[in-house]
Amino acid sequence: MNITIAVDCMGGDHGSVVTVPAALAFLSKHPDAGVILVGREEELAPLVKDARAGLKSRLRIHNATQVVGMDEAPTSVRSKKDSSMRVALHLVKHGEAQAAVSAGNTGALVMISRFALKTFPGIDRPAICFALPTIKGHTYALDLGGNVDCTPEHLFQFGVMGTLLASALDHVDRPTVGLLNVGTEEIKGNELTRQAAKLLQASNLNYHGYVEGDDIFKGTTDVVVCDGFTGNVALKTSEGLGKMLSTFLREEFKRGPLTMLIGLIAMPLLRRFRNRANPDRYNGAVLLGLRGGVVLKSHGSANAFAFEQALARAADAVANDLIRRIRDRMDTMMGANGENV
Amino acid sequence: MNITIAVDCMGGDHGSVVTVPAALAFLSKHPDAGVILVGREEELAPLVKDARAGLKSRLRIHNATQVVGMDEAPTSVRSKKDSSMRVALHLVKHGEAQAAVSAGNTGALVMISRFALKTFPGIDRPAICFALPTIKGHTYALDLGGNVDCTPEHLFQFGVMGTLLASALDHVDRPTVGLLNVGTEEIKGNELTRQAAKLLQASNLNYHGYVEGDDIFKGTTDVVVCDGFTGNVALKTSEGLGKMLSTFLREEFKRGPLTMLIGLIAMPLLRRFRNRANPDRYNGAVLLGLRGGVVLKSHGSANAFAFEQALARAADAVANDLIRRIRDRMDTMMGANGENV
Repeated sequence: MNITIAVDCMGGDHGSVVTVPAALAFLSKHPDAGVILVGREEELAPLVKDARAGLKSRLRIHNATQVVGMDEAPTSVRSKKDSSMRVALHLVKHGEAQAAVSAGNTGALVMISRFALKTFPGIDRPAICFALPTIKGHTYALDLGGNVDCTPEHLFQFGVMGTLLASALDHVDRPTVGLLNVGTEEIKGNELTRQAAKLLQASNLNYHGYVEGDDIFKGTTDVVVCDGFTGNVALKTSEGLGKMLSTFLREEFKRGPLTMLIGLIAMPLLRRFRNRANPDRYNGAVLLGLRGGVVLKSHGSANAFAFEQALARAADAVANDLIRRIRDRMDTMMGANGENV
Repeated sequence: MNITIAVDCMGGDHGSVVTVPAALAFLSKHPDAGVILVGREEELAPLVKDARAGLKSRLRIHNATQVVGMDEAPTSVRSKKDSSMRVALHLVKHGEAQAAVSAGNTGALVMISRFALKTFPGIDRPAICFALPTIKGHTYALDLGGNVDCTPEHLFQFGVMGTLLASALDHVDRPTVGLLNVGTEEIKGNELTRQAAKLLQASNLNYHGYVEGDDIFKGTTDVVVCDGFTGNVALKTSEGLGKMLSTFLREEFKRGPLTMLIGLIAMPLLRRFRNRANPDRYNGAVLLGLRGGVVLKSHGSANAFAFEQALARAADAVANDLIRRIRDRMDTMMGANGENV
């Protein structure tokens, strides 16, 4: 086994009924990977007892007696030393796994991974970075909720981290970076964006300038940078729109016998469309800026298919040697104490 | 003519080639309405010379020699005393029209209308409010770009204005108000949202609590309140997603002869879907909080169909006596000097 992933099996809206089947599906598609299922042993053991021997040999259960609640304040999580989330991250810290995946409480995941795995010099807090589909391919957008109150320096750091991620995973030499704003003209925006623009302009990043909301899905730049509040709202608003449109489409096909027949005829085509647009396919956001290992945040409401994608993304990041690549390029991007050079 | 609308014919990405045909289409569907076409007379006159007599009798051209550029700073606009935008707003100020519609520079429109038409007591600046489609009907979202730097008091004022709009146009007695945030738990959010939540909670509005991005299109509340930066990004991101999905769907139908045939069969159904989801149908945001008249902001890139919808919305607001209704209810919502009572 080249890659071992620690899975927080208790996190998310659904817990082990989703995470364990997802882990088994992941193992069956990744013959070189292993998983450590972290959570209450008595709950997890029955879920894997009927798994094929070929999978069983590549998984083990690591007992963790506590669970971080989805609504718990990150600070109250500190006392839970034996939570599945914390234990999974510590397995990465101690080198037993190269990556951890959790669908649990985002704030807690950011806080615990920052303590356990540390950030790179010059990076204050890990950012949540999502590869969003675009007309052209995909765009790395960050921060999507890890940092709701940002300084211009944070936005600059997101630009650095996004650049490093795009270089590492997509082997793009100088990824373009856009700064999310309410207009592309220089006068537009708030104080935060105007100050961040100055930092990005003065840096050696391939800074494109301001981009607007619709540039994300257009794929105007390889990386889109914003504060975590705006990013989170934009992401969830898109999610809501996607659901509304698919409801509308379904309703049209269910109007009567004729439209249902048309739906049947169009099924393979609609299925291809759905596969392409399905947000579950893109599930799994990287906690970017950690130097101790790869951490992936799955959507809290992920189903087994979606959670499996987050595991696959984690494996991909490990296979691409993400952390080492980021570390190697970090020196050329940031000074020793994190200043832009 | 019961309703007269002043149309800024020069604003927007396309100017008079879009605004004038839209105004003619609007007139033909609204036999009780008239329009004043504001802009360069020598440009506008040829565009209406072949119009039916029944329409011609309800339109007049009002010459305005200047144009506000789409990228111009609102402050530099002040010297343009004869811009089509300013002249259109002054026609409302002087009672020659009850509403003005412009697809021009948003910042300039907010600034000029604030000077020309004044805000209600207790309202600092007009907010841009958009009726977004939802699974259930529609939701009034504000601010969508008029105020990029907001205080908690601004967000509270948006709650008041959104409530008044929903009551006036939809005749809802106590519309629910949601505050846009990155989570629904009390601990979530930034300083701005936490302080605004306190003001909304203490008010006599029907405050629902925090909502997330996906609640907008779910229709969780009648009104969704946010700062103009977040709102603008969320709106434009949705726009981008909508375009991407329609590109994907079109591509699937164009894969080959068979899928094209299926597309032909499914055409009426797809057209109904497109009509329902078409953002052009929802074009036209109200500048809310002005006491001197109705001002509608059209999307800058609106086509004639979309711009016509903005004109229809303006007519609807006038027909519903929006300004008087807001003024009448204002006293019960706000104290004389704008304090919440």
